[in-house]
Amino acid sequence: MRRWNGWGDDTTSYRLRPGGLRFLQTWAGPGRPARDADFAEVMKAVPLSRLPPHPLVSSDAADRVRHARGQSLPDWVALRGGRLGTLPDGVARPTSREEVRELLRFAAQAGVTLIPYGGGTSVVGHINAGPMPTLTIDLRRLNRLLQFDDRGCLATFGAGVIGPDLEAQLRARGFTLGHFPQSFEFSTLGGWVATRSSGQQSLGYGRIESLFAGGVLEGPAGTLSLPAFPASAAGPDLRELVLGSEGRLGILTEATVRITALPQIEAFHAVFLPDWERAQAAARQIVQAGLHLSMLRLSTAPETEATLALAGHERLIGALERLLALRRVGPSKCMLLMGITGRESLVKASRKEALAIAGAHGGVHIGRLFGQEWRKNRFRLPYLRNTLWDLGYAIDTLETATTWDGVPEMVAGIEAALRGATMAPGERMHVFTHLSHLYPHGSSIYTTYVFPLGATPDDTLAHWQRMKRAASEAIVRKGGTISHQHGVGVDHAPYLAPEKGELGMATIREACRVFDPTGMMNTGKLV
Amino acid sequence: MRRWNGWGDDTTSYRLRPGGLRFLQTWAGPGRPARDADFAEVMKAVPLSRLPPHPLVSSDAADRVRHARGQSLPDWVALRGGRLGTLPDGVARPTSREEVRELLRFAAQAGVTLIPYGGGTSVVGHINAGPMPTLTIDLRRLNRLLQFDDRGCLATFGAGVIGPDLEAQLRARGFTLGHFPQSFEFSTLGGWVATRSSGQQSLGYGRIESLFAGGVLEGPAGTLSLPAFPASAAGPDLRELVLGSEGRLGILTEATVRITALPQIEAFHAVFLPDWERAQAAARQIVQAGLHLSMLRLSTAPETEATLALAGHERLIGALERLLALRRVGPSKCMLLMGITGRESLVKASRKEALAIAGAHGGVHIGRLFGQEWRKNRFRLPYLRNTLWDLGYAIDTLETATTWDGVPEMVAGIEAALRGATMAPGERMHVFTHLSHLYPHGSSIYTTYVFPLGATPDDTLAHWQRMKRAASEAIVRKGGTISHQHGVGVDHAPYLAPEKGELGMATIREACRVFDPTGMMNTGKLV
Repeated sequence: MRRWNGWGDDTTSYRLRPGGLRFLQTWAGPGRPARDADFAEVMKAVPLSRLPPHPLVSSDAADRVRHARGQSLPDWVALRGGRLGTLPDGVARPTSREEVRELLRFAAQAGVTLIPYGGGTSVVGHINAGPMPTLTIDLRRLNRLLQFDDRGCLATFGAGVIGPDLEAQLRARGFTLGHFPQSFEFSTLGGWVATRSSGQQSLGYGRIESLFAGGVLEGPAGTLSLPAFPASAAGPDLRELVLGSEGRLGILTEATVRITALPQIEAFHAVFLPDWERAQAAARQIVQAGLHLSMLRLSTAPETEATLALAGHERLIGALERLLALRRVGPSKCMLLMGITGRESLVKASRKEALAIAGAHGGVHIGRLFGQEWRKNRFRLPYLRNTLWDLGYAIDTLETATTWDGVPEMVAGIEAALRGATMAPGERMHVFTHLSHLYPHGSSIYTTYVFPLGATPDDTLAHWQRMKRAASEAIVRKGGTISHQHGVGVDHAPYLAPEKGELGMATIREACRVFDPTGMMNTGKLV
Repeated sequence: MRRWNGWGDDTTSYRLRPGGLRFLQTWAGPGRPARDADFAEVMKAVPLSRLPPHPLVSSDAADRVRHARGQSLPDWVALRGGRLGTLPDGVARPTSREEVRELLRFAAQAGVTLIPYGGGTSVVGHINAGPMPTLTIDLRRLNRLLQFDDRGCLATFGAGVIGPDLEAQLRARGFTLGHFPQSFEFSTLGGWVATRSSGQQSLGYGRIESLFAGGVLEGPAGTLSLPAFPASAAGPDLRELVLGSEGRLGILTEATVRITALPQIEAFHAVFLPDWERAQAAARQIVQAGLHLSMLRLSTAPETEATLALAGHERLIGALERLLALRRVGPSKCMLLMGITGRESLVKASRKEALAIAGAHGGVHIGRLFGQEWRKNRFRLPYLRNTLWDLGYAIDTLETATTWDGVPEMVAGIEAALRGATMAPGERMHVFTHLSHLYPHGSSIYTTYVFPLGATPDDTLAHWQRMKRAASEAIVRKGGTISHQHGVGVDHAPYLAPEKGELGMATIREACRVFDPTGMMNTGKLV
């Protein structure tokens, strides 16, 4: 069963080896475990629903609690501290477009705000209720494969299908979508579209923007059907308005996606580079060489160290480090993971070219072991949040994207902003960064920071707010986008205007007004 | 010098060999040459400008005539017949953003409609004046390379730069944009963006949508700056609103494009397949195999025949046909051109894979000769319009894109619609089609039709209108987009609503209102 106040399924946990814990204590100081509120306690505080009764709507308190929050740090503080604040007045689980339209009618009549809900994995507050009477629409029953065109590599799903169900149905037919965000096990196709999600292998398969071919959106003012053209020059592309609309225009009920035949070969290789500068140069040249790669992921030296330390295989890591030292790759080593996917002949040629580029920058290829480990654990890392919280630490991530010339300063600027906003003199934190999605024209930057919980939930939240604000301001100041893959929600909304401009913001607001004249859709998010 | 009433530069002409002419007469009947109006005649009919004087505005009659029309068939009928109808009251050639803003102010005060003008190569009426007093803004003096980032593969140009000037500056630095629409020699970067242009090698380099990283748009209500992020999840992508905006939002003054290092190897190969069905299967499988191709272009059997006949090398073609017949590729042969571009090792692997797929469908690879010829003449074909008009024929093209399962019926449907709308009993026309841009998830369809001029310009225009209407209705009925690469302009505007939907059309209209509250930008185009 899904954890109500943490990440993921309650049968899975991420054990931290002793070496990992020691590493954490060294860098972030001692943890400060807090007492969590339990479910029963939280349930007692749930206010009465303000919705009129409707056969499609549950006002069950447990349902409402389980749909109240996502996975942002403020969400965690609220859930663990048992201070849920506002929560939805009801939850509906429509099974058809008709039921979605019926719920839109009901909400319009009752003056209720609607929140479209996919997997509940938002880390920026996309699905949190405001003060108005609110109905959360859980879309996970809209999960069927509706059309499958193997010749044309297109599949249409109910937009509430979760990652594993989508992939399983495609794989059974010899295909893949290739979209693997870290939230893959729980997040939904519609959620990916609404938040402009990027999968770990987007270098090969494309971001959701290029995978989403069309679909159906049901909004208060009517239905928008987006045909699945392979391309079009017929005016502005309305898919790109739905992508990133974060529930403000309506509810995506169906989505057609561009699928690919399963690759002949897929392998993940690890290369260690001697330092951050050479690592960036190698990674940049590899991504600009136009090879057949599906992933590049480059860790800074501190993240490389943290990754190895948290893995906890001390003897194995020791052997690796001795081997690398012989090849002049020392303590400032940076790990580059490469996914190579496709036809055998192209994979072979691409691997050779990529390793030659890395080698020219002093990179040492250590084979597939680390890549395989990474793949095995690709969706497990968020479970570390549960483990660390229990040990008295909060862990959060933030991310941006910028052009190549801005990458070094952006990494340094974000890390410095986080460090500069620590709680109190003597308090420590640890911060490290990787480039998670590389492009020929720039890179995303993904920073992880760990800090001990505060003495009270308010302290933890205030500390996080200071850090988040400092980092977000650094991102804006240095000309990055406020989000490369998490979306805007409420946490990033104050920082959207600088990159969209006045006319851009006004246009997005007008689009919302066209689809949702009374402003009942996911009010307060995005704009 | 640019022809004022035909395609291209007046020092270039496309000679039709005797065999080509015979082929045309056989299929389209005898030509009916018409007397063209001459420039002096047209000049005499130019009305007085209705604009107040302004130092940046020329109201010279020759300037106005030369900016009056594009390259659509109605434009040709107007220009050749000397019946220009409405034309702009003035032409301005700004050299800076400040001058563009000054012209926006002038137009707002004077109540004048503005038409942004790039290369004047529109084939759907993008740049034609309406009845209101109109100022055409010729942007070709905004043509400088403003920023160049070789490490980050980004270049910023004044948006009025024409194709050859853009490529020359990039090539001198070891890079290419790789954007080669047929209009390349005359059309501009800003025009490509505003009309969602697609280059001949978009399979490798991407359509202008993926090449356009950001830029600056000056509109009546203000300035929109689009930052050149490599990717972003921060809400709807406003680049995709500017792309295809056809001058309705404002004037693109600067554009940053994603560039690529010049490829190690580029080669164009020809393969002949035995029939249309096998040709489509081969092309589709090749494009779905994820190879390193920069172009796939597949002609139907009638277009293959026309291409070979119009080339006029009868002995060479005879030899080719005997060779193909030995390999069981006969009279229903279809020509597939493949561009393979990139690193040597990947080009080699990709060529092998592509030829193996083609071979499995009975395809015969005849090497690079036809491909080289195609490349040499890639921008020459539109000059055939001049030659044919002089011989008494009109030639026009239309295009769409659809999913793979819709391709065969769409090709047949468009061709049948055109044939069904011929002028009079006994009148003939010739029509043939190729797939110009192939995608894993569908294809564009590009149909050429040739017909004898009517007895009067009105007859020619009426005939064209019947054909265009019939073909456009067929495209809409069969679920294609009304344009894959030409845009909407005025000719396609009546067919836009079916694919955008009511909410979509309303959203585009509202976006226009945000940027251009008084409706002074390129009125009557797009929506």
